[in-house]
Amino acid sequence: MRKTYFTPGPAELFPTVERHYQAAFEQQLGSISHRSQKFRDIYKHTVEQLRILMNVPETNGIFFTGSATEIWERLIQNTVEHESFHLVNGSFSKKFYDFSVDLNKFAHKFEKPFGEGFDNAEVTVPEYAELICTTANETSSGVQMRPAEIHKLKRANKDKFICVDMVSSAPYPDLDFNIIDSAFFSVQKSFGMPAGLGCWIVNPSMLEKAERMKTHENQIGTYHNLPSLFKNFSKFETPETPNVMGIYVLGKVAEDMNNIGIETIRKQTEKKAKVLYDFAEKCDFLDIFVKNPDHRSQTVVVVNVKEKSAADIIKQVQTDANMVIGSGYGDFKATQLRIANFAAVNLEQVETLVEALRKV
Amino acid sequence: MRKTYFTPGPAELFPTVERHYQAAFEQQLGSISHRSQKFRDIYKHTVEQLRILMNVPETNGIFFTGSATEIWERLIQNTVEHESFHLVNGSFSKKFYDFSVDLNKFAHKFEKPFGEGFDNAEVTVPEYAELICTTANETSSGVQMRPAEIHKLKRANKDKFICVDMVSSAPYPDLDFNIIDSAFFSVQKSFGMPAGLGCWIVNPSMLEKAERMKTHENQIGTYHNLPSLFKNFSKFETPETPNVMGIYVLGKVAEDMNNIGIETIRKQTEKKAKVLYDFAEKCDFLDIFVKNPDHRSQTVVVVNVKEKSAADIIKQVQTDANMVIGSGYGDFKATQLRIANFAAVNLEQVETLVEALRKV
Repeated sequence: MRKTYFTPGPAELFPTVERHYQAAFEQQLGSISHRSQKFRDIYKHTVEQLRILMNVPETNGIFFTGSATEIWERLIQNTVEHESFHLVNGSFSKKFYDFSVDLNKFAHKFEKPFGEGFDNAEVTVPEYAELICTTANETSSGVQMRPAEIHKLKRANKDKFICVDMVSSAPYPDLDFNIIDSAFFSVQKSFGMPAGLGCWIVNPSMLEKAERMKTHENQIGTYHNLPSLFKNFSKFETPETPNVMGIYVLGKVAEDMNNIGIETIRKQTEKKAKVLYDFAEKCDFLDIFVKNPDHRSQTVVVVNVKEKSAADIIKQVQTDANMVIGSGYGDFKATQLRIANFAAVNLEQVETLVEALRKV
Repeated sequence: MRKTYFTPGPAELFPTVERHYQAAFEQQLGSISHRSQKFRDIYKHTVEQLRILMNVPETNGIFFTGSATEIWERLIQNTVEHESFHLVNGSFSKKFYDFSVDLNKFAHKFEKPFGEGFDNAEVTVPEYAELICTTANETSSGVQMRPAEIHKLKRANKDKFICVDMVSSAPYPDLDFNIIDSAFFSVQKSFGMPAGLGCWIVNPSMLEKAERMKTHENQIGTYHNLPSLFKNFSKFETPETPNVMGIYVLGKVAEDMNNIGIETIRKQTEKKAKVLYDFAEKCDFLDIFVKNPDHRSQTVVVVNVKEKSAADIIKQVQTDANMVIGSGYGDFKATQLRIANFAAVNLEQVETLVEALRKV
């Protein structure tokens, strides 16, 4: 019997995804050349729909990679000659920092305990940092950094690049792409698609930096460096044979979301998040993990489990309601639950989940 | 109406592929965690089937990337401290060489004209080269390097690593993985799957080298370096959220191929290639491009077009027989045809294609 996945990624598929894959097979998109007009039309359509959905200016490139993890590496390689700066408050923002260390950069971090978030006022960016790495939604702890704070941070540091990890929140955060320099996500979270595709949005000033670095013999990589990505993008092609079906389906899902309207999706997300947080607040055996309401993620709700066992709750909800919720991340596996509130699940499903949790 | 693709990649889908994707959706594999036992079982199954199909020893790691293009980069990054050596005879072997240059290595090449191939006897490997890069099948020109010659090359250079680009030939070449150090392919060629997944086979001596390089502050990359890939592989996991459905379907296709039997697939491949080459030899308006029969690819047949226009032939075959053949690569677009002879097309389809070509 079909389950409903409230796991924070891979997650429940968006309701139209399987149908779009079927259409892709019917059109034999698995066999078309990635140097054909048919592919260029697909890439162009996906870019157009993402521009509408996330309000991305025409000047920004929109590229595809194997994963968002790959984009951490490409961002550091292509925009950091010496020093990067990272806001770290969980496992994924920490990994982004680790990548910079592994690439022999001088990586600075401002670290906060698991479950705490960042506002601009408390952040001092090191003088020589070239790239500020922020996380719109830390998937491991359920902490968000609000777009307004990210925008202020860039305004206060105009000489530096700022990038936003939107992996488990896109397209929810209303980011201003005229302010931020880059953002990225992967499709298996709130876009509700099978994994295997990362999406990277980049402004042309980052390309200039990468080109300068290349002439100074920095290793900016090969096929997925910014000069190669921008050059291919100018004709809606990719450097390598890409995940053609994934690019097609992402465009279709973005189109479906545009038909619903991003404002509606944002309101629905907030309404569903409120239902989950309100329940957790009143529930005897649950506590909201993130204390500051401004830092509470709207897309990944993390709760502490009291008295009961987290594993038992997960098991019982699956047995009773055929719904799968996520365990806590890493050390918090036994004591927390993570409930994804992505666009693929509707209010009714969230209410059914709350009922199932109530009966535990 | 459904077309049959004889294009050299992306190519005709293997007959069972769409069904396996359907099964993946029915099992909700797009939503399962890549840290779950279910995913580990899938990875393990795919590895087991590939080991049987390609006779890969238990000691070799089998990893997944976004593309084979990515593997060119990872191979150089992880196994070449200073110098690489490349047998170059077409666009793809040339790109592999270019990647080494881009990564600031001292890249040597032994280059031959487009359409010519390599045998061990004529190859002198530079003294300090650490990695010998060979191409089992140069997709752009339809030239193969026979496994026996690759094995001899390694035996004559035991102190160096040898890797084999099998992108447009796997699983056809009968390579001895006890001799070669690494091989790789992508799934959109002879495995007949939608693109978006590369597969990299590596022996543990390459891991040792990568670990040594890491301690000497070489940039071996981050999540997709060999220490990270081998560590995750030991528990059948991947460093990042991978293309789960692709990994599942690859395992199923490999299983289907094992049920047919690799020897049968090889014999069928050679029989179909013979039909195509025999026809080209007798045909008034076609010439076999690769003069040396030993160097003629069994999986990508390249022919020169005389008197007629290549584009017209492609168009007419599509109109008459609903079959798509590939154009020549790059500068040869107007004067050559490339006909993929992958496992997804059977003898009957090849004979129908030959009939359609005969009527042009």
